Amino acid sequence: MTGRITFWFDFASTYSYLSVMRIGGLAAARGISVSWKPFLLGPVFAAQGWNTSPFNLFPAKGRYMWRDLERICAARGLSFCRPDSFPQNGLLAARLALAAAEEDRIAAFTQAVFQAQFGQGADIADERVLQGCLRVSGLAPGLVQRALDPAIKSALRAQTDEAIAMGIFGAPSFTSGAELFWGDDRLEQALDHAAAVTI
Amino acid sequence: MTGRITFWFDFASTYSYLSVMRIGGLAAARGISVSWKPFLLGPVFAAQGWNTSPFNLFPAKGRYMWRDLERICAARGLSFCRPDSFPQNGLLAARLALAAAEEDRIAAFTQAVFQAQFGQGADIADERVLQGCLRVSGLAPGLVQRALDPAIKSALRAQTDEAIAMGIFGAPSFTSGAELFWGDDRLEQALDHAAAVTI
Repeated sequence: MTGRITFWFDFASTYSYLSVMRIGGLAAARGISVSWKPFLLGPVFAAQGWNTSPFNLFPAKGRYMWRDLERICAARGLSFCRPDSFPQNGLLAARLALAAAEEDRIAAFTQAVFQAQFGQGADIADERVLQGCLRVSGLAPGLVQRALDPAIKSALRAQTDEAIAMGIFGAPSFTSGAELFWGDDRLEQALDHAAAVTI
Repeated sequence: MTGRITFWFDFASTYSYLSVMRIGGLAAARGISVSWKPFLLGPVFAAQGWNTSPFNLFPAKGRYMWRDLERICAARGLSFCRPDSFPQNGLLAARLALAAAEEDRIAAFTQAVFQAQFGQGADIADERVLQGCLRVSGLAPGLVQRALDPAIKSALRAQTDEAIAMGIFGAPSFTSGAELFWGDDRLEQALDHAAAVTI
């Protein structure tokens, strides 16, 4: 039996970009299957009294994050282009990702969205940008209709509630059994845990 | 000429424990000299509107931090014992560290204090605990008098101001030239940067 890991990410999250681009390869190399779970950080932050990203609320932390991200992308050969606005509205992208999951394309679609946003600086609240992401990940443009279905909307809300119930407070996060790991820096540790646990 | 790195830490900072226990060995292996700079996170947090550690203000983040620290200590063979209170008052420890620096013993003294606090759960605001740390690091008990000297007090304030001016917002942090690296997770990256820059 193979190990399993659950990957929690928010479409506006800068550090989620790093994990989105590498979790598939790292997990496959260890024989671990990945459950991709988009959720919304907005309600998580609101519960902490924040009305925007902590990277905007705390400017020194924000300046550092952008430089840190730029350095890591350079070291990993990932393209990087800081978008004009941050955080972007990732609601439609998250709903589309759940619709893409129904067609077994969530990984490809999610990578396309993060590359557009942080690799090219595109605005992922723009439906034309998302249509490009659907196209490159082999999905039909009509998936937008499915993304607006009440079932998808409530699934995303439920996934966000589940994240909060798991103790998740930021993204990316990874869960393996009862263990929570936060941040791209913990991806290897999370995968090691998942590999050691036979489910 | 050897590379140089500046190591910024706060005596109440949990993740500083991880770096305090390994920076000496990692830096020496790369031929890098370390400048140990204790500072006070209190004024840094106050500037962000926080009256205590974010690990207390944001309970989910705090619960995660303690579990994360416990896992990392276990993986590294570091003893870990969560102190009764957090954050502890590290003011006297920080002043003593500056006095220990005058005798070229800041690394040994700092390691002793962090081991007492997070390895044994001791209260580092207790002068008897700090006396034990002085003893194991080869320093005289009378160093407490030196630590209370106005010159030491103002040096600690100046170092804290310098940290803020460098854009530091948490601990541990590392600076190499104009680059800032935050967190024990960035220690290797910071050392690589210092090794690549000849000063």
